[in-house]
Amino acid sequence: MANQYYIGVDLGGTSLLAAVVDAESGRVIGESKRKTRSELGADGVTTRLVETIERAIKESRVKRDDIVGIGIGVPGPIDPTTGVVVRCENLGPSWDQYELGRTLDTMLHLPVTLDNDVNVGALGEHAFGAGKGYSDMVAIFVGTGVGGGVIIDNHLYSGSRNSAGEVGHLIVQAEGGPRCNCGQNGCAEALCSRLAIERYILEAIAAGESSIVPDILVQAGREDVSANIIGTAYEAGDQVTIAAVNKAQFYLGILVASCVNLLDPQAVVVGGGVLERMGDAYLEPVREAAYQRFINHAAAEEVKIVRAGLGDHSGVVGAAILARDRLS
Amino acid sequence: MANQYYIGVDLGGTSLLAAVVDAESGRVIGESKRKTRSELGADGVTTRLVETIERAIKESRVKRDDIVGIGIGVPGPIDPTTGVVVRCENLGPSWDQYELGRTLDTMLHLPVTLDNDVNVGALGEHAFGAGKGYSDMVAIFVGTGVGGGVIIDNHLYSGSRNSAGEVGHLIVQAEGGPRCNCGQNGCAEALCSRLAIERYILEAIAAGESSIVPDILVQAGREDVSANIIGTAYEAGDQVTIAAVNKAQFYLGILVASCVNLLDPQAVVVGGGVLERMGDAYLEPVREAAYQRFINHAAAEEVKIVRAGLGDHSGVVGAAILARDRLS
Repeated sequence: MANQYYIGVDLGGTSLLAAVVDAESGRVIGESKRKTRSELGADGVTTRLVETIERAIKESRVKRDDIVGIGIGVPGPIDPTTGVVVRCENLGPSWDQYELGRTLDTMLHLPVTLDNDVNVGALGEHAFGAGKGYSDMVAIFVGTGVGGGVIIDNHLYSGSRNSAGEVGHLIVQAEGGPRCNCGQNGCAEALCSRLAIERYILEAIAAGESSIVPDILVQAGREDVSANIIGTAYEAGDQVTIAAVNKAQFYLGILVASCVNLLDPQAVVVGGGVLERMGDAYLEPVREAAYQRFINHAAAEEVKIVRAGLGDHSGVVGAAILARDRLS
Repeated sequence: MANQYYIGVDLGGTSLLAAVVDAESGRVIGESKRKTRSELGADGVTTRLVETIERAIKESRVKRDDIVGIGIGVPGPIDPTTGVVVRCENLGPSWDQYELGRTLDTMLHLPVTLDNDVNVGALGEHAFGAGKGYSDMVAIFVGTGVGGGVIIDNHLYSGSRNSAGEVGHLIVQAEGGPRCNCGQNGCAEALCSRLAIERYILEAIAAGESSIVPDILVQAGREDVSANIIGTAYEAGDQVTIAAVNKAQFYLGILVASCVNLLDPQAVVVGGGVLERMGDAYLEPVREAAYQRFINHAAAEEVKIVRAGLGDHSGVVGAAILARDRLS
């Protein structure tokens, strides 16, 4: 039998990434990336998406007939049965109830399936990344926000309303916790995301502590404390940044412990922009906070806490696997 | 085909309950209850258990040949494959690595299977209680501690080390939270269990607030604030007790929200001694705290938060269903 190829797409607020993936090996055969330009609206971005997919196919040199279907990770809630995007706060209101699946199918003559971007990332890590070989795992992606996915018995677990895996909204500091973007207080996202680290740093500076972060921001001509700026300041020994990172690591460990105490998975895979920049060492304090809080102490370290293995590719590989699982 | 009967056993720190259950209908045909007398040690309690089971069979008038097997809910970690009790802190050290399954099998000539008591309770509620008809649910039992179980796709989900469903040890107040019996701080159990309510009441009294609880304790000749005493003081309008209950309800709502945001089940079933005593009304503030924190706001109320339906029988019915699922 000839190899079967699927297209995986990571539809992000900043960039579009499309890849042709060999579903057998998880290997990316060809890929293309461009800016999303969300100001163009849903139809405009979808046109760019089609062009990006065409370029990825061209780069891969895979024959169109060998491509079985397209999987897309979307940064917001979707309806997997209809291929409709419920909404996409990062991308704008033109995406509300947008029929992305049907539109792409019409333009590309290939079947399309969608899911939430972090669920899709969990699937990618499970199939070919750090979660490979674990039948039951939780993925946590730490970036601007905190999202994730749950794998149960080798399948993505979607829950009753396609809302499972919202790890960023486990509440870890119910009283006195900071306001989360969701409107509630004390969610894990508000305590261990990239934005949380930024907030810790800016609060310390506002309270009069000395930090090199303002200088770095000026040099970089930026206003937001990106993962890269956090990494640079951390590596330079900036005490404010180190304290901020330690706090985020502590709360990430709390989140891991809560997930493990509820689900007792074989592994927790941690990825996302912050982890990409900070590397494996970021997880050591996370493990320390987590392991001592596992209620099954005896075998605590049997639950692996590992860094995601596919980097930027977890989304596109996962989207391709999603397409394989749903469309074949 | 003749009806198939299974024996369900709830091995508790205070009492032993054995029941003959019709696995088709979930109906308890006969039952027997007696004090555990844990001071007799594992062998002594097991002898009492055999007598209790024999009495339940006699009361049921079911023929011994129609009984297929025995399921037991144990208040501690067990090894489901060997029938060994890992340990039972409530019952004493003689239970460490105790071969309960093999011992009972030898004495009663019936196959035996074990699981954690709260997992078994979740199974009972799923099969014939408030969780009936929901393929995916979380059960939370609020008593002296807080335990529970996770049902995924109509099956009890055990996790990788048989430790799933430890809902009492999701961390909801990581910084500044009270010490939990597990040694950590801020676990849900330390904030919404019967012992937590007792602690809130005693702390308020120690701080000089006026309460009728001390008088009730003297009248009842008790030292611990039981669920019944909490109920009595609450119904009498004791402000200290009402505030303590409200706090526990808030944190129970937080715990429900965290479980729902991770798993998106169809239902959360809440039972246990506190709920038994306080009734349905106890859940209204819990729902209020929980629903507003569900990340999938749009369809929040599609997730049912319901009171357990089997009362004291959830354990024995669940244990019988466990036996049916594992031994048939």
